[in-house]
Amino acid sequence: MSKVGIVMGSDSDLKVMSAAAKVLEEFNVEFDMQILSAHRCYEELHEWVATARERDISVIIAGAGMAAHLPGICAAIFPLPVIGVPLYNEKAGGMDALYSIVQMPPGVPVATVGMDAAKNAALLAVRMLAVGNPELEQKMNEYRDEMKNQVLEKNLHLQTVGYENYKK
Amino acid sequence: MSKVGIVMGSDSDLKVMSAAAKVLEEFNVEFDMQILSAHRCYEELHEWVATARERDISVIIAGAGMAAHLPGICAAIFPLPVIGVPLYNEKAGGMDALYSIVQMPPGVPVATVGMDAAKNAALLAVRMLAVGNPELEQKMNEYRDEMKNQVLEKNLHLQTVGYENYKK
Amino acid sequence: MSKVGIVMGSDSDLKVMSAAAKVLEEFNVEFDMQILSAHRCYEELHEWVATARERDISVIIAGAGMAAHLPGICAAIFPLPVIGVPLYNEKAGGMDALYSIVQMPPGVPVATVGMDAAKNAALLAVRMLAVGNPELEQKMNEYRDEMKNQVLEKNLHLQTVGYENYKK
Amino acid sequence: MSKVGIVMGSDSDLKVMSAAAKVLEEFNVEFDMQILSAHRCYEELHEWVATARERDISVIIAGAGMAAHLPGICAAIFPLPVIGVPLYNEKAGGMDALYSIVQMPPGVPVATVGMDAAKNAALLAVRMLAVGNPELEQKMNEYRDEMKNQVLEKNLHLQTVGYENYKK
Amino acid sequence: MSKVGIVMGSDSDLKVMSAAAKVLEEFNVEFDMQILSAHRCYEELHEWVATARERDISVIIAGAGMAAHLPGICAAIFPLPVIGVPLYNEKAGGMDALYSIVQMPPGVPVATVGMDAAKNAALLAVRMLAVGNPELEQKMNEYRDEMKNQVLEKNLHLQTVGYENYKK
Amino acid sequence: MSKVGIVMGSDSDLKVMSAAAKVLEEFNVEFDMQILSAHRCYEELHEWVATARERDISVIIAGAGMAAHLPGICAAIFPLPVIGVPLYNEKAGGMDALYSIVQMPPGVPVATVGMDAAKNAALLAVRMLAVGNPELEQKMNEYRDEMKNQVLEKNLHLQTVGYENYKK
Amino acid sequence: MSKVGIVMGSDSDLKVMSAAAKVLEEFNVEFDMQILSAHRCYEELHEWVATARERDISVIIAGAGMAAHLPGICAAIFPLPVIGVPLYNEKAGGMDALYSIVQMPPGVPVATVGMDAAKNAALLAVRMLAVGNPELEQKMNEYRDEMKNQVLEKNLHLQTVGYENYKK
Amino acid sequence: MSKVGIVMGSDSDLKVMSAAAKVLEEFNVEFDMQILSAHRCYEELHEWVATARERDISVIIAGAGMAAHLPGICAAIFPLPVIGVPLYNEKAGGMDALYSIVQMPPGVPVATVGMDAAKNAALLAVRMLAVGNPELEQKMNEYRDEMKNQVLEKNLHLQTVGYENYKK
Repeated sequence: MSKVGIVMGSDSDLKVMSAAAKVLEEFNVEFDMQILSAHRCYEELHEWVATARERDISVIIAGAGMAAHLPGICAAIFPLPVIGVPLYNEKAGGMDALYSIVQMPPGVPVATVGMDAAKNAALLAVRMLAVGNPELEQKMNEYRDEMKNQVLEKNLHLQTVGYENYKK
Repeated sequence: MSKVGIVMGSDSDLKVMSAAAKVLEEFNVEFDMQILSAHRCYEELHEWVATARERDISVIIAGAGMAAHLPGICAAIFPLPVIGVPLYNEKAGGMDALYSIVQMPPGVPVATVGMDAAKNAALLAVRMLAVGNPELEQKMNEYRDEMKNQVLEKNLHLQTVGYENYKK
Repeated sequence: MSKVGIVMGSDSDLKVMSAAAKVLEEFNVEFDMQILSAHRCYEELHEWVATARERDISVIIAGAGMAAHLPGICAAIFPLPVIGVPLYNEKAGGMDALYSIVQMPPGVPVATVGMDAAKNAALLAVRMLAVGNPELEQKMNEYRDEMKNQVLEKNLHLQTVGYENYKK
Repeated sequence: MSKVGIVMGSDSDLKVMSAAAKVLEEFNVEFDMQILSAHRCYEELHEWVATARERDISVIIAGAGMAAHLPGICAAIFPLPVIGVPLYNEKAGGMDALYSIVQMPPGVPVATVGMDAAKNAALLAVRMLAVGNPELEQKMNEYRDEMKNQVLEKNLHLQTVGYENYKK
Repeated sequence: MSKVGIVMGSDSDLKVMSAAAKVLEEFNVEFDMQILSAHRCYEELHEWVATARERDISVIIAGAGMAAHLPGICAAIFPLPVIGVPLYNEKAGGMDALYSIVQMPPGVPVATVGMDAAKNAALLAVRMLAVGNPELEQKMNEYRDEMKNQVLEKNLHLQTVGYENYKK
Repeated sequence: MSKVGIVMGSDSDLKVMSAAAKVLEEFNVEFDMQILSAHRCYEELHEWVATARERDISVIIAGAGMAAHLPGICAAIFPLPVIGVPLYNEKAGGMDALYSIVQMPPGVPVATVGMDAAKNAALLAVRMLAVGNPELEQKMNEYRDEMKNQVLEKNLHLQTVGYENYKK
Repeated sequence: MSKVGIVMGSDSDLKVMSAAAKVLEEFNVEFDMQILSAHRCYEELHEWVATARERDISVIIAGAGMAAHLPGICAAIFPLPVIGVPLYNEKAGGMDALYSIVQMPPGVPVATVGMDAAKNAALLAVRMLAVGNPELEQKMNEYRDEMKNQVLEKNLHLQTVGYENYKK
Repeated sequence: MSKVGIVMGSDSDLKVMSAAAKVLEEFNVEFDMQILSAHRCYEELHEWVATARERDISVIIAGAGMAAHLPGICAAIFPLPVIGVPLYNEKAGGMDALYSIVQMPPGVPVATVGMDAAKNAALLAVRMLAVGNPELEQKMNEYRDEMKNQVLEKNLHLQTVGYENYKK
């Protein structure tokens, strides 16, 4: 079955990007996670991306902050979908990474998700893999039902106890 | 074979969004294009999205400007990938649409591309459909080779005539 | 008498949105508060908004953060005023929610207040209900007088003790 | 019946703000339109706002650009709803007016609509007046149905002729 | 001799605005400090500003945050210089106040200083009062010399101990 | 009598900055206008500013765009008020100049006006010179009355002909 | 002697980037200009950058717009200075390119100049090559003298004819 | 051998700017570090910059926050490269300093690095000095190899222990 590649430029990104791994495990999707910088070890990154198809990787999730070139570089080399996660930083507030990832030139798209949204990146990867995979599509539908039920339960709790006694 | 849904909220978006249709035609990917507003005919939009899987739609491309809710609404209803195209407007410069599309809450991702990047949205849809479709993956690789060759030809022309005589 | 609906997408918004409930209680305006997500339980949200008029709800206050679609969805379904509260978040600083709420397309307005301004949202709802309700208008005028007096008392205190001894 | 006040700071705002008057005429809502600057004739503005209730004005729409103080000043004096329209200008792109209108301090709300959204301001005023006025609520529902039908007709046209032959 | 008026909308602004008072005391410039809100007690504010010239106030320093209308209102009423201090807040980062103060319409200027720059506001007021007051100009020159000497002493300390042993 | 210095970094700024000269002529205030760049001829600029007090210059108006250092440099050398005019440019929209002028460090204030607001800069200079000059203060009051009357005349015209026939 | 590499991602950038070539010609500095995209022909770009030192290229000027990865990629491969020129585009106003270029991670700097500032990029390259090259440093000083004289001549013209008769 | 000048406007900048000194020590590049404000002691700053070439300074690194004029002033006086470090502050988030440094007018470039990127400023200075200095170029290549190896070691660690057991 298809695998997902997860790549980030620094181990300081691991805390945020782990959320993607957790979601993939929840859906029983195999992944290959790497720390490979677009600027500090571009050759090793290039090698890993260029051979990813041979290892059955069908979607790459790339998380990066600041001048975030990693997702775009992956999309330049890899022919299948690349998902970019702009990582927040205190100084430019994540706009630097968002712009660096979403504003790709014509011909080389990156599927961008919200700031620090590693969880959503993984859910998007699952949606992609669910194209032509009814079992995974079914799991996604169950996941969405469960999300719905969690909100409805919270709402029921609110209706029961009132806003002043609500314990989150 | 899987189809792509293309939806926009107003016929004023058609000029930009047509670029997506052209790319899909180039790749022989069938599509179903609709003008359906999230705010002005939410019931008809809901109906079209909720039944999209029955019509073999596997990816939805949604283009919207300003407070761009259309892609997010599609992603709330549709279980497979939704691609959002933030449409530029002179007043808020497209940041309103970009934020409204990319900053989705946990659980409901939208694959966001750049401002007015309908062409890239379609190329991203093709990459998604190429997962598990070697023929389409092959076409994408050819498309990328052709892009590369166009740049190299332009560069050769520059080397030949020099920058002062270069005719774009 | 007319009621106010208060809706938010997540119980994490409850802390800010409770300020709206408190103001309405102060004015003896009945309200119905719900946790209903535009993206995670759109059908239940739709149902609640579409039947709100039957339950004498005349104004809806909707609070949402990030790609804040909740107020706009309410305004698409509900024919009377919808007030949107953009909720601040550290990453995009609330601009994402502000743009997603205020920049509604022609035909479907949302009455937007400031970031996290749930208190002002409720005061705006009271002003709306005071149209054609002289008693409520009178209460609003008394509320405004009291606000004025609080400022004047603080100023008197400042004049009395001086800025260096002022205890806030 | 209740009237709407429309006020703007300069006759250069008249082109945008006229859209509000046109909508109110469509709904047979009377209005009183004034050019009165918060900075250049604050006493006359103050007089007009302070006596507005005596002239049956129940909602004020105030349009202003740049450091847009007009809506906030109206809301400081007038006890019923004030709707603010931030006017776009090329230099600060309308963000100056948006911030100056929406970020009101606690206690004094302004119902802010989008940049240059005078039409939406009037529709919001109609929604406010429709609270407790079933006839006007009915008209608003008809207006919304018509909007929906216009979108559906455009979509039907698109389905009939295809995107390449669509004439807007 | 001419006095300076210092006005702010809330006692929560006092912590920042006190820096202005301290500078004026250092220059022996008399001041009259008030807490008067443009939105919560506009009549009392109006009264204080309109009679300020009778009390020998020649410059007004107005500090305000969010939709900061206070400096502009002062400048609309008072014929001599008004200095505006945009107050920082966590949510919109002070840009709301900066835009609301600096982007005044033609005819009614506000002399804007940096975010939270109450100290600079007072120094600007002293520079204004020093026009035609050689003694105050002389004091300002001495103040500037002292600032210079403080920098040079710090630099000398750096040259002496090196950057690694520098104690700030 | 006191004079005003007007300085700009390039003759491309002359079109905007001439508005300041026109206002000063209207008030019979003498001025000395210079094109002197902070970066291209810093020595000549320094010389002109450092000797400005000897030539009875009491206020300097400095207009600059992009990384606008000119007003700050003037304020570093000149002990009396410096007014900064941030000049708009298409690329960074004037925010570059606004930030470069208004965010001066503690000790060295620049009285900043709005983008391209050369007219307001001159009116602010007149207000400054009117401190201790009752005749000029009187002229300023007359100027303000005239502004007010112009608005009131426009409003009267609007009341007479209606918004649809209003000719600006 | 050392050469300068000039590289851009598309021939649409040639109009802006030609200004860099013109400056280098003025200083008799040899250059090698290429159109090579970081995303569309990354291998050819990599090859050109990786062998640049063998061809005596000592400084690279890279111009790019949108998600501008080109300068950062060059700096990852090339050990000597890389100058990045963020190219303006109407939609994100150049902030996308500025952030993508200037916010490089620790270890891999790019010397960023202003938006569309290809001329300044070349002057910066000349300053770099002038380190250890007294003749080039001398030329730079002459260039700066000429710039100064141009400003002074314009100023002299202004003093002679007055601002109303000044012909730019 | 060539030296590097490091200058900052205040000792509060020392904490960030020390990182530049540390890098230069690592490369055995001599430096001269100064605290000299563009606004508070412009004459001493001018003197230091104007004589820097006599003391064999070939590159200047200037760090400044807010309305950051220091790098631009250095570049106006000094004929060789000036590197600007925009210093972050909580209030305007560093955009004030970034714009004030990067948007220099034509003719006077500043090599701008990222917010608080003093380390990168020093590495850029080393790259500049390495032009024509093969030994320093060699050291830079070794430095880059070491950076690469650090990333690869971290990645190896990740592959060995897995993301859940990774200790940063």
